[in-house]
Amino acid sequence: MSSRRVGIIGAAYSKFGDRQDVNLAELTWEAFREALQEASIDKDEIEFTVVSNVGAWSSEPLPAVVVSEAMGLRPKGSVRVEAACASGSAAVKLAHDIIAAGQAEVATAIGVEKMKESPTPLVVEFIGRAGNYMWEFENFGLTFPGYYALYATAYMAKYGVKEEDLCEVAVKNHYYAARNERAQFRNEINVERCMRSPYIAWPLKLYDCSPITDGAAAVILASEDYIRKHGREATWILGIGSATGTSNMSKRQDFTSLDASVVATRSAYSKAGIDPGNPVKSIDVAEVHDCFTIAEILAYEDLGFAKRGEGLKLLKEGETYKEGSIPVNLSGGLKAKGHPIGATGQSMIAELHHQLLGKVGGERQADIRRGVALAHNVGGTGHYAYVTVLSLHKEVEA
Amino acid sequence: MSSRRVGIIGAAYSKFGDRQDVNLAELTWEAFREALQEASIDKDEIEFTVVSNVGAWSSEPLPAVVVSEAMGLRPKGSVRVEAACASGSAAVKLAHDIIAAGQAEVATAIGVEKMKESPTPLVVEFIGRAGNYMWEFENFGLTFPGYYALYATAYMAKYGVKEEDLCEVAVKNHYYAARNERAQFRNEINVERCMRSPYIAWPLKLYDCSPITDGAAAVILASEDYIRKHGREATWILGIGSATGTSNMSKRQDFTSLDASVVATRSAYSKAGIDPGNPVKSIDVAEVHDCFTIAEILAYEDLGFAKRGEGLKLLKEGETYKEGSIPVNLSGGLKAKGHPIGATGQSMIAELHHQLLGKVGGERQADIRRGVALAHNVGGTGHYAYVTVLSLHKEVEA
Repeated sequence: MSSRRVGIIGAAYSKFGDRQDVNLAELTWEAFREALQEASIDKDEIEFTVVSNVGAWSSEPLPAVVVSEAMGLRPKGSVRVEAACASGSAAVKLAHDIIAAGQAEVATAIGVEKMKESPTPLVVEFIGRAGNYMWEFENFGLTFPGYYALYATAYMAKYGVKEEDLCEVAVKNHYYAARNERAQFRNEINVERCMRSPYIAWPLKLYDCSPITDGAAAVILASEDYIRKHGREATWILGIGSATGTSNMSKRQDFTSLDASVVATRSAYSKAGIDPGNPVKSIDVAEVHDCFTIAEILAYEDLGFAKRGEGLKLLKEGETYKEGSIPVNLSGGLKAKGHPIGATGQSMIAELHHQLLGKVGGERQADIRRGVALAHNVGGTGHYAYVTVLSLHKEVEA
Repeated sequence: MSSRRVGIIGAAYSKFGDRQDVNLAELTWEAFREALQEASIDKDEIEFTVVSNVGAWSSEPLPAVVVSEAMGLRPKGSVRVEAACASGSAAVKLAHDIIAAGQAEVATAIGVEKMKESPTPLVVEFIGRAGNYMWEFENFGLTFPGYYALYATAYMAKYGVKEEDLCEVAVKNHYYAARNERAQFRNEINVERCMRSPYIAWPLKLYDCSPITDGAAAVILASEDYIRKHGREATWILGIGSATGTSNMSKRQDFTSLDASVVATRSAYSKAGIDPGNPVKSIDVAEVHDCFTIAEILAYEDLGFAKRGEGLKLLKEGETYKEGSIPVNLSGGLKAKGHPIGATGQSMIAELHHQLLGKVGGERQADIRRGVALAHNVGGTGHYAYVTVLSLHKEVEA
């Protein structure tokens, strides 16, 4: 149904971590400068800027104007978008649609978050208020690890999974983060170390949780006309699916799946021409939303990479490692690369753009056979889900 | 360049004012219910929801999911957008582009703001921090009336205008608000009363300033295919221009014009086929961003309704009253209808949609001859500008 094809011509993410060494604009420039260089365009060619930033912990209430000006993108139009932890993917979707609509030939989605500016307890409280604040945060005092602990306990009860099993996700993602110079945590861990880490919300321990992160990421998109005319290297967006969940977890039917992920996946597969019955045969590499270890297992199943209850088996058999049938989070994931909320989506898509083009290199470079990659980005406890399918080709091979 | 035409099939805004009688969802429903009824669609037909909300003063950190769920729009995708006081127009632009891109046949832009939830001094402080907080707010202690007072003094000095002249804007807009049952202030005033009101930031007095407002507004958009197939009454979006200013007012060259308004206007006129040399001959009625009285005068000139320095003359000659050549803010404007930041843009566009269709009626109904209307929505002190041109026809008449 899309009227114009849109591709990515440049993408990058900054070093993630505690970035009190730079301000918001400087952090953004680290990522945007590299994306610009890869795109090999003049910034004046960028006709619209979509900035994703949650920013409650930051001192800039109008991040889009601050970023636009600092990147040299004014007076072109700009806007901020927010879909909780899926904000970055939402920004890419909107930049895509602006181009597909013929309202721009080139547009950029820039995500940035400086979560370390505020004290950790305030950040934890703010995140805990997400969704419908009155019901769960005020009444029950739940914070985010508590919400995901409910998923973990439900999954463990239904499928007989143990805490040690969840730690396997952290072990994989730390393994790859140790090999990603931009990751927040560059240390390998093992199951024993994960099991010895303190409980945050039973059964989730410190090593089951993604960290609080400063970081930025940028994706520059262009129309097919522009890409052909200028002979640019590109990856193509084959489809973006999005969905919204309930504002309260207490209104969800099933705690072993995220409804929004399932709906967004169905839409993305339909647009991209991927068989929902066997997506693994079409996809080379994926980044999924592992804000907690349990979330990566739910993602395997919601995306159809594994049958219900068999997500851990997929991991334990090595299928989501680089050598497996569907490598997942070779960046280190939110878990170990870090999770600067407003920039996470673009960082996933930047990583996959480079995976498809063989630019990741080294021990983290996936084997690209079909030329297709998938980014799965969740906001809140399943409040939002965005699934983006990228490809070296303009169609999925039959 | 736009590949698919998009029209508005339903639009509405709630009663504006102090709305502590309803919560965020209830306030939104007041507007959305009416827009749905006018559109005469089932809400399940809406494929994407763009929510505009600044919300720093509200207790809901994820308004898009709360609004989507309460309006019955989940599990369809949603996102929140923010461009300060232009957020509502930005939401309409993105909903338009999503449809023009072929990603939806029907989408909605919903704006809501509950500014009365927080104490007034905190709201004033938050708004004052907008832009680049460190330079102007922290260093100079400027709040929003102070920023616009700089425009007023520059304009007064350059063109020999007096405080009494600015009050004329308030007199006109209160006149129409007194006739708009959804307006926050339904009292007429005169220049004397305006002149007697207390100074907020010289030369701006209480009656030169728009109020703090709770309110919601919704615009439902559809593709031309959908509108034809279902035989819906619609107004068409001929063009939307947007632009970004500097984050600091201190970096602006000229305080008698907003750069972002000029750039956004040029783009909107170009897309809509309106002669920038004489736009008044094509446009029947406009809503412009009168957050302060001086802002309406700047808007007349930035939009090309009057030559530089002649904005007040246009007003004083009655040309922006209903009987004049270019009626402006027959709703009462931000000044007297009210200014719930995230909903203002949709409320302008809803008002103009009904003006074009002759549905406003009574003493506020403009004479529609060319079938074209314009909404001008500024964010911050000129940080963002969005200009939207609507029409009964798919092209401007030559």
